[in-house]
Order: sequence, then C-alpha cells, then structure tokens
Amino acid sequence: MSGNTLGHLFSVTNFGESHGPAIGCVIDGCPPGMSLCEADIQLELDRRRPGTSRHVTQRQEPDAVEILSGVYEGKTTGTPIALLIRNTDQRSKDYGNIAQSFRPGHADYSYWHKYGIRDPRGGGRSSARLTAPTVAAGAVARKWLFEQYGTVFRGCMTAVGSVEIPFESWDHVPHNPFFAPVADVQALEDYMDALRKAGDSCGARIRVTASNVPVGLGEPLYDRLDADIAHAMMGLNAVKGVEIGAGFDSVAQRGTTHGDSLTPEGFRSNNAGGILGGISTGQDIEVSLAIKPTSSIISPRDSIDVNGQPVEVVTKGRHDPCVGIRATPIAEALLALVLMDHALRHRAQCGDVRLAVPPIPASIG
Amino acid sequence: MSGNTLGHLFSVTNFGESHGPAIGCVIDGCPPGMSLCEADIQLELDRRRPGTSRHVTQRQEPDAVEILSGVYEGKTTGTPIALLIRNTDQRSKDYGNIAQSFRPGHADYSYWHKYGIRDPRGGGRSSARLTAPTVAAGAVARKWLFEQYGTVFRGCMTAVGSVEIPFESWDHVPHNPFFAPVADVQALEDYMDALRKAGDSCGARIRVTASNVPVGLGEPLYDRLDADIAHAMMGLNAVKGVEIGAGFDSVAQRGTTHGDSLTPEGFRSNNAGGILGGISTGQDIEVSLAIKPTSSIISPRDSIDVNGQPVEVVTKGRHDPCVGIRATPIAEALLALVLMDHALRHRAQCGDVRLAVPPIPASIG
Amino acid sequence: MSGNTLGHLFSVTNFGESHGPAIGCVIDGCPPGMSLCEADIQLELDRRRPGTSRHVTQRQEPDAVEILSGVYEGKTTGTPIALLIRNTDQRSKDYGNIAQSFRPGHADYSYWHKYGIRDPRGGGRSSARLTAPTVAAGAVARKWLFEQYGTVFRGCMTAVGSVEIPFESWDHVPHNPFFAPVADVQALEDYMDALRKAGDSCGARIRVTASNVPVGLGEPLYDRLDADIAHAMMGLNAVKGVEIGAGFDSVAQRGTTHGDSLTPEGFRSNNAGGILGGISTGQDIEVSLAIKPTSSIISPRDSIDVNGQPVEVVTKGRHDPCVGIRATPIAEALLALVLMDHALRHRAQCGDVRLAVPPIPASIG
Amino acid sequence: MSGNTLGHLFSVTNFGESHGPAIGCVIDGCPPGMSLCEADIQLELDRRRPGTSRHVTQRQEPDAVEILSGVYEGKTTGTPIALLIRNTDQRSKDYGNIAQSFRPGHADYSYWHKYGIRDPRGGGRSSARLTAPTVAAGAVARKWLFEQYGTVFRGCMTAVGSVEIPFESWDHVPHNPFFAPVADVQALEDYMDALRKAGDSCGARIRVTASNVPVGLGEPLYDRLDADIAHAMMGLNAVKGVEIGAGFDSVAQRGTTHGDSLTPEGFRSNNAGGILGGISTGQDIEVSLAIKPTSSIISPRDSIDVNGQPVEVVTKGRHDPCVGIRATPIAEALLALVLMDHALRHRAQCGDVRLAVPPIPASIG
Repeated sequence: MSGNTLGHLFSVTNFGESHGPAIGCVIDGCPPGMSLCEADIQLELDRRRPGTSRHVTQRQEPDAVEILSGVYEGKTTGTPIALLIRNTDQRSKDYGNIAQSFRPGHADYSYWHKYGIRDPRGGGRSSARLTAPTVAAGAVARKWLFEQYGTVFRGCMTAVGSVEIPFESWDHVPHNPFFAPVADVQALEDYMDALRKAGDSCGARIRVTASNVPVGLGEPLYDRLDADIAHAMMGLNAVKGVEIGAGFDSVAQRGTTHGDSLTPEGFRSNNAGGILGGISTGQDIEVSLAIKPTSSIISPRDSIDVNGQPVEVVTKGRHDPCVGIRATPIAEALLALVLMDHALRHRAQCGDVRLAVPPIPASIG
Repeated sequence: MSGNTLGHLFSVTNFGESHGPAIGCVIDGCPPGMSLCEADIQLELDRRRPGTSRHVTQRQEPDAVEILSGVYEGKTTGTPIALLIRNTDQRSKDYGNIAQSFRPGHADYSYWHKYGIRDPRGGGRSSARLTAPTVAAGAVARKWLFEQYGTVFRGCMTAVGSVEIPFESWDHVPHNPFFAPVADVQALEDYMDALRKAGDSCGARIRVTASNVPVGLGEPLYDRLDADIAHAMMGLNAVKGVEIGAGFDSVAQRGTTHGDSLTPEGFRSNNAGGILGGISTGQDIEVSLAIKPTSSIISPRDSIDVNGQPVEVVTKGRHDPCVGIRATPIAEALLALVLMDHALRHRAQCGDVRLAVPPIPASIG
Repeated sequence: MSGNTLGHLFSVTNFGESHGPAIGCVIDGCPPGMSLCEADIQLELDRRRPGTSRHVTQRQEPDAVEILSGVYEGKTTGTPIALLIRNTDQRSKDYGNIAQSFRPGHADYSYWHKYGIRDPRGGGRSSARLTAPTVAAGAVARKWLFEQYGTVFRGCMTAVGSVEIPFESWDHVPHNPFFAPVADVQALEDYMDALRKAGDSCGARIRVTASNVPVGLGEPLYDRLDADIAHAMMGLNAVKGVEIGAGFDSVAQRGTTHGDSLTPEGFRSNNAGGILGGISTGQDIEVSLAIKPTSSIISPRDSIDVNGQPVEVVTKGRHDPCVGIRATPIAEALLALVLMDHALRHRAQCGDVRLAVPPIPASIG
Repeated sequence: MSGNTLGHLFSVTNFGESHGPAIGCVIDGCPPGMSLCEADIQLELDRRRPGTSRHVTQRQEPDAVEILSGVYEGKTTGTPIALLIRNTDQRSKDYGNIAQSFRPGHADYSYWHKYGIRDPRGGGRSSARLTAPTVAAGAVARKWLFEQYGTVFRGCMTAVGSVEIPFESWDHVPHNPFFAPVADVQALEDYMDALRKAGDSCGARIRVTASNVPVGLGEPLYDRLDADIAHAMMGLNAVKGVEIGAGFDSVAQRGTTHGDSLTPEGFRSNNAGGILGGISTGQDIEVSLAIKPTSSIISPRDSIDVNGQPVEVVTKGRHDPCVGIRATPIAEALLALVLMDHALRHRAQCGDVRLAVPPIPASIG
C-alpha cells in the first residue's frame, strides 16, 4: 500500500498532476452488474468543476471523464474501472517564478524535502485538481449505495471565513456558488469580493451528512468508521480539523446530555453523529470539516528559496481564494467512498448489510 | 487488512477483551538491533494504568507486560514482537444487568447490530482497556524514533468538561493525575469530585505534540501524515474531533495570517501544525483531540433492550467519569506509531530519513 | 503489511521463535457466531505434533493451545482470535555450536545478512515449529468452510525421497506416521531407518486437495486463487515447487487433451486442478508440493563462519530427517486459509458464496 | 486490497480488457529522481508484442505506451506513474459465437459464475493481453534495480510441448521467436507448424533468472521472497507450476547433496535457487514455470452453454497456439517486480540494501 490508494475493498488509486497530460483513478472491487455510464460520473464532476463562478479559480477545465475499463454493455463487470480525465487548460508558465522558492503554507516546501524533486506546475501532485478523480470514484460509490440501501449524501458550507452561515434548507444548496443552505447569499458574495480585492484568501467550514446508512459498518479497533472518515477528510487538501457528531462541543457536555437516549422509535438526538464504538448505528452520519485559507495568494510573503536564502513570494496564476467553496462535493464523495468500503468489509465478515429496524429517525436538517 | 491492525510497515495487531484472559498485540516490522526490554514498555503502561487516583476507574490492573517474541539477548531481531498483558481484576458480574439492553452513547447498540453477538463483560472489545496494547506498542516506536532522530512526544490536557486549562509548563504534567500543564489543579479536583457525586461524566480536550520530527514523512494523497494521524486519533475510544495545527481556528483566518512564513532560520509560526501538503516539515507536530463524556454512568437513562422494548439503564461497575483523563499517554503513543510507520515508509521510497536543515525552531509552549 | 500476516480478510498474524517463551497467532476477520473451543483447534495441532514416531524430531511438545480472545460463551464474536502455544521443551544448548557458522541449505546465512542479528536457538524464527500457529488458524478456517459449504480438506504424501507412493485410499492416511495413502508402509519405514543411520535427510512430495469448494473464489489478476495458493505453499518451510492440477505435466500436453471438457453433469477431467483463469470452478482443488531435504543433518559439511572463514558444520540436536513427513496437515491448513480468505473476498464483492450447480463431480482418488 | 494490485511498496494496479478502449497500470511507490521515458518502457513491451512471428497471434498491436503522470522533465517524482496503452486492433465480432458457451480450459466458465456477467470479447479481463501493463511496470523496476545494484534479468524457453530445449547460451535468446537459448530452432519451427496445422495448442516450460541480487530480500514468514515469486508467477495466465532452484528434483535429493555448501569464495552450487529461509542469499534467483496449452483452439470440443445445455465449441479468432512463447519477457518482468518490492521492504525495515560480500558466484549458465 503506497499511499495513493483509498479504501481496502472498494479501493481507489489516484494518479496525475495538475499540469500533466491527464489525471484519473482506478477503482478496484466494484460489485458487478450495476448500470454505469460516463454521465453518471460527469454529474458529480460538474458540481466541483472550476471556472463556474467569479469566486473560484478561472481555469477552464471540462473535466470530461472517459471510462477505460470495467464496464461492458453499460454494466460493471467486477473488474477494475479506470477513469481518465485529460488536462486541457494548463498554463505552466504562470508558475515559473515559484519553482525555486517555497510559498508559505504550501506543500512546496515539504515535497521538495521529501522527494528532492517536484513538479511546480500548478502545484503538481499537491494541487486540489487531484480531487476530481476522487469525486469521480465517489459517484460510483454513491450510485451503488443509493441503489442498494437508499443512502444519500448531502453537504453544505456552514462558514466562509468569519461569516457563519445558518442552516435554512438543503433546497438552497444547488442554487448558489457556495453550496450554502441559505436563500440569500449576498453577504457571502460581498465577503468574497472584498477578499479578492485585498489579494487575500480565507478558510471555510463544511458539513457533510449521509442518510439511510446501513447499521453495523465499521471495524471497532483501529479501522473504526469514524477513524476512516477522519482519515479520508483530513487527507483532503487544506483540511485542518474534523468532527463527528457533536465534535469539539462534546468536551463541555456531560454524559447525561451527550449520550443519545433510545426509544422504541429510535434515537432522541444525534450527538454521536451516527457512530458508536466506531460502528454505524443507522442514524445520519454527521461530519464537519475545517478548511484553511488558500496558500497561493497575490499578497507578498516572506519565504526562502531552495538554497535557504530569503525571498519575497507573490503567487500569480489562477487560484481559488477559498478552496472551501468547491470542497462540498468532494467531502460528500469521500464520505461515500468510506461507507462503500465499509459496506463491503461488513458484508465480507458478517454476510449481510442492512438498515436498522426500527427505522432510525434522521437527525434534524 | 481486517481492522484491528494499525500501520503498514510498523504494524500493530491488537487483540483481547476487557474481561477475557488477556489482551495484547503483535508488532510486525520493527527494525532489528534495537535494545528492548519489558521495563522500556512498562514505563509507558504505568502512565495510563487504571486505579491510580480517585478520578479514574478503581479497577486494579498491574498491566504487567510479557515480551513473547522478537527480542533475543535484549535486542530486537526484526521478527514480530508479541506483547501479552494478562487481565487480573475482572468482576464480570458487575455487568450482568446490561447484557440485554443498550447504554445510551455506548457501543453496546452498534456491536449487537453488527455481529449479532457481543461480549458484555466490561464493554468487551469496545473497552478503553484495549488501549493498553496500543500504549505498549507505542513505547517501542517512541524508543526507536528517539534513538534515531531524538524525536520526543509530549501531551497534556487542555480542558476538562467546561474548565479550560491554560498552558503553564510541560514540567507540571507528570505531577498531577490529569496530565495538566499547571501547578495548581485544585479546580480540576473540585470539578471532578462534584461530577462524581452527581453520578455524571464529562468530556475533555487533549493536546499532543512531537518535536524533532524528521522532514518528509507522509504520502501526499491519500495517506497523508495528517490523515493517518486523524485516523489513529479518531480511532481512539470516545474521540469526536481532531485538529492539526490551527485546526478549526483556520476557518476564520486569512491566507496572509495562516500561512507560516519562512526565514533562513526556520518558520515564524506553526499554524500548519508541522504538516504541509500531508508531509512533515520538521516543525513540531501539533494535534488536539475532543473526547466525549463516558457513556457508562450511574444516572438512569432511557433506552431499549435487545427486543426493542423501553428500559431504564443504570450502569454500575467501575468506570472512568472522564475517559479523557487517562487519554494523554494513549494519544502520545498513537502519534508515535503513526510517525514510526511513516518514517519506515519514507525510508522505503526515498532511502533516508533526516531532520530538516537548518533546524526548525520548535513551536511555542 | 509487514510479512508475517497471511490473508487479507481472514488474516493470520504469526509470532514466535522455536525456543522463545511462546508461539502463536492472531486471526482477524473471523465471522461471528461460529461455535469454537480449544478442542476444535487441538485436533489439528495434534496431527502435526513432533515426537509421535521415530521418523520425526524427538522434541516433546504438547502444543497445548489457549484461546486468549475473540470467543465468548463458546462462540466467535467477530473480534480477533488470539491463540497462544507455550514452548516447553527447549534445549537451547544443543545449538550453541552453530551460532557463529552457517549450515549449508539453512536460513542461518540469509537471516544473518538480512537482520545483522539472529536467534540461533532451534533455528529461531526460521524453525518449522512456526507452522503450529498456521495449523491452529487453519483449524478455524476449516471449521467455518465445512459448516458453510461442506468443504473438506485432505492431504497425503506421494513420494518420500526416491520412493514413489501410489494412491490406494484416503482411509489409510491416518493409520501411519507418513500420511501415506497406502496400507503397507514397510518400504517407507525401511527407507527412513536407513536414512537416519546414514545421518542424512531426504525430500518429499505432498498432495493436498479440497472438495466441495464454492465456485467463483479468486481475483483474476493478480490475486488469483492459484497465485495465492502458490504463495501460501511456497511460504512453507522447505517447499521448492508447487503445482496446480496437471502442473508440470501440462508442458507436454496438447490443448485438446488438457482443457477439461464440460457436460451437463459436470467436468470430465480435472487438469485445471479446480481453477480456471484464477477462479475456482467448484471442482476439487488439487495441489502438489516439492519439499527439500532437511538442512540440519549430522553428516559434516563444508561451510563458513560469520567472519567468512572455512568451517566444517555438523548439526546435532533433534531434527526431522524428512520435514515432508509432518507437512501434510500444514499444507491442508494453508489451503483452508487461502480458500477462507477468498470466500470472504468474494462475499464482499459479489454478495454470496455458493457451490456450483449442477454439482461438480469430484476428481478421481 | 482488491486483487488487481501486485506489490506492497512498489505496487502495480492493472486495468483493462482485451477489447476495451485501453489497458494500463498505475505504479505507486517508485523512488524519485530516476531518469525515465517512454522508450525505456517500450523496449520491453516490444519484446512481448503480438504479431511478430507466425507462431504467435496475428493481432497487430503497436502497444505504444503513454506516461500520464509521475515523471517531470524526464525524472520520476515519487508520485504515481500511470501508463496507458490504447487497444487498436480489436475485432470483437470474432468472439460473438462463444459469448453464451464455455471453452474447455478457459476462464469463461469461472468468470461467469463469479460475476454473473462477463466481457466475452477476446477473453475480456482474462486475456493474456493484460500482461502488457505488467511488462511495462516491470521495465521501470528493472531500470531501478539495474542502476542501483546492477541486477539483470534473463529468461528463456526450456521446453515447448514435448520438445526439450537444451541450454546453449543466453546470446541466442534474442535471435529467434521462441526465446530459445539455442542457435538452431528448426525443430521448434517444425513442431509449431505441425501443431498449427492440427488446430491444436501446446504447453511450454520457461526459466527466468536474476543476477546481482541484493542479499537479505524477503520476509521470512509468510511473505517469503520465494512465496511472492510463486504468487507472481502462478498469477500469470496459464501457469500451472512454479519451481525455485532444484524444484521438484529436491524430492529425490538427499540433504548432503541438496544443501549448497559454502566456501570463503561463495556457494559451490545453487540448489536453493538463490533463496534460503525465504530470504535472498545473493546467488542468482532461479525460477522455472510450467505453462499449459492455450485453451482457445480451432478443434471442436464438448462443452455446455450458460443454460447448462451441451454444445460443441470451436474457437475462431486470433490466438497464440502456445502462450508460453511470449511468456519469457513477462516472467522476467514479474521477477523484477517482486525483487523491487522486496528491495523497498527491506530498505524500510533494515535501512540498507546491498550485494553480498564476498561476491557470490553466479550459477552456471
């Protein structure tokens, strides 16, 4: 296991660099017999695509996916599904000036020390562009989980920079460029416009959730369901914090409050975020992510070059001023990939995967 | 990979139940030629041992470790190191009354649904007792990392329930039962005494850090160093949130502030928590954990039994009112295990493991 | 994955040295709810036990197994099953004279070069004693496969040194110390007695077979069922060759003869050995193994010491003059472990595991 | 780990079907900084290419490889290397007549039972065409091992059908279409011509060897070097037997003969095939393979269709009458991949990889 593979039984091996010829992934372990075509995957890729509003990078990438294998006459065959996305809008010259120095807060420094060589074009392997194959693979997992169990994944932004976003309704999420669950996003537009003018970037907080989750998913020690969710989410570019259920609010809670009491009709609350002892309960899985500000900014910063000499770094090129804005569909995909893998692991050991009976009431909105 | 193994190259396979005959682990992949004896491991086990203050479970377990293999004439041979800890103070009858019902907030419910069978004695496999083998394995990793690179691991409690604990000095940590970095723990004693009288439990926040960390550890996608730390930490009983570096504070930060600027003498700050792009920079690794309140409490709770009928659950037996109190040495061990695994992974691919030059200044505090 | 684990979903992690305090293994991934007690395992351990005839090592080891975890009230719980076997009859002084030199044909040389340190007592980790935990784990796999599918495993010796052993009946196998499928073993007794007097050792050939095998087990590329069988068998001490079905006889066969033709009642022959394209067909799995002569012999041999100086090596101590004699139950266990792992892998991806319909006629003999 | 990945640290994930749009692989874990271009890989692909003599399939495939990632300015970056080979000469209609029935000796039957669906075009995933990505990945491993240690891989055919091929010299191998180590291949030409006229196919035996092998590669239990070689080789289409060193000849050998004696100048013989106790000794690795006759033959055979009804099967299309003819470069590639993986595993645990001192004399020719 060499690092670029996510999952054990539904495993996704990711390849590519931001400005190389192509990016993609190989999905191994997909159950046979599921209908699958490129449009099923394109749908999710389009949700994270760059260039769709003024608040994200202006790089224009169609992100057209090609299925190279594993599907025959519109159905999965059980053999590896290779997905290919050609890069089309690389402007590598934009990055020439940072090839010999390190952007503060960027992977430049650590890649160079690890490998002694790095592809500086667009961040190379460290680019958020490499989340596209993850989203593509996630689309396959989502489809299977939905068809088998009715599992659905949703996500939204809950804060952008210092602006908290209240939850109004999932219905609003597709209708604004922020994945914000509110009807009026003027405050967010204004905040982002001011930020862009200042040549700065900001962080974000994202919430993702899964409903209609089978009960019993997760290995109790060490590969707990929450542990693998944390692994997947913290493995996403720029994520600095992960919470399940009540998260850091648990610290100040008491046991009498935190522990979700049960009734014959289901749980009364969901501080657990749908996971107890590392195993899914059937309640909604609830995850929250902290995403740091983009490190590629136009404001000048103090840094050093590869020879250790002081330099001032200014990053031109086309960057997301808030990488969190496009993170929602990616986090949904990651959650789907983790649940898919654990559904298959559970099926291997315990022979069936099923929803909880009596049905578990979903958490509130 | 069946769930109970942590790590790929320095891998720890954990076994046992709270009230079974024994618990333990097998460490595979330890480099040969390192001095190792039981006292090296016992030292760390004693730090997490139950029964050492009135604020933790009164179960008396010597937790005496026996090395069964992998060490010859006081040196590791490169073959698996099996560690055995016999359980001695099981009082299984304490748990008879909860065998047929589910404690709110406890793994009872999810285990029963996953496996169709569970060992209810002391929580069985879901007991925090199973962190002892993790600590034992961590002691081996710590020793190797210290001898090779001078890496040291420290941890402390930063909040217990609603009481925030300021950082005064690492020197205080060993001198109180809370791993608190303060000289005066009277407020914590009082808080815990009141809680115990109320028959309730509380959460906690823990901070762990590693210093003198080699540069270049971590696979950028998906097995990032921070992702694997999050996996290890969220895999610890009762953890509901994990932060690296600035964590959730990153959300409201701007790029000009968050990105740690570099000078020829090193980094000026450590919002990154020692990790950029999933790879260690050589700065201190900084991790923060949210730990939920213990679910086994004496206060009566509404729940259901295995037949779905309503019951009132009261948990007797001997429990930690705040599992966070003993979590510090465990979290240190987990951090050591993750760094050890990545040190070997890095050595495999890149051929050497080394500290950053120029030396990276440690973060403050 | 650090080398001492066999299997991915039903995984066995083996530990111990020949003359250390104990040997054993941890089985992870066993399905929950199966009846299991120590006697189920002891039965198979007794079949490979040393000291039971004059043709094998005279070391007396009861090989009493203790189940440390994973079983509650006589049933597997789905959590790791740790098995412990204490070593009782170590005579380490027997081996003092070979600690500084290398026995021709023995792992002494390669261990010393790999690790820079080795446990010379009884071969340390390279001892055939370490097959005991494999047999113990295999007993668990056999029980599950038999209860689920009626799968049975059998093995016999087909040649000892230059003496070919014809197949008469499986019924004879338990009634002689060679696992020979013949009524009269006088020729084998005489051959072994002469060999022992000559202070020499000999090779052997073993056949193992599985009947009532589910159809569809095996991943076509690279983890084919035959590939994983070859891995398991070649991983057994002293094995130098592995054949599936017609094996090396396939070289001179023609396609018209080799390809097993099918009829509505099943296959007409079994040159495939029950595996086509890396996937089980439901026919009997047929495996043949070549086992080399024991390298620890009393006859003097030319060798070198750790300083590269020439020495003459004579191995005293208690050794099997033909390690193949006790290999049959071990090879059966390995075959069971591989099928078990693939049964779970198949169940994960394809959702069910079943026997072929129409029933496949067993191969002859 | 889902079956289509070979190797743990230098891992190759293979995808594609014979008549799909493309085949390829992703190599993860390649050390950074090695020069690599497409020509380095094409060289080895051309050695296994179809259509190069009348004795192999007449399918014309340029097998032009494209490097999609992991190489920057001609050097490996340490990130995944994706290799793509487009299929160009598919004639899927050739296979229409066998979509509903099972060729004797072919994977048709087992795939259909495993997955409930199969891609019948050219054998789909079970086609020997899928060895091309393995060869491509092997070229990368060979280059690194050669540059680091001078390791070289060679292979030749030692029997085709009933014709034994004596070893004359490695020099002859590139000069005939059989990879035969003899100057005069007229007997082989005649044998193959007669076979083709008869509409039949035949088996073959192949030998592969590695020289200048580092000492100490291999995990003693269970992932021995010989075990992983056996896994890789038996995972190759049509292989039914694997031998290391003396192989099945070991059965009739005595310990005094089999054990390779040592002198200060090196080993006197190589019955071990370069591996003792599962670990490389530095001697040449010697492997022999039995390859079964091709199952796709023009002669009519009895079989059944997917409904269990009797049918007569005749396979038209373009097939190798002896798949063993093109197997030599594939087996070399597999040996290189296994050694590469174990070189990195050894480096992880033991910190260095080196050749034996004093130098080990190579085995005879």
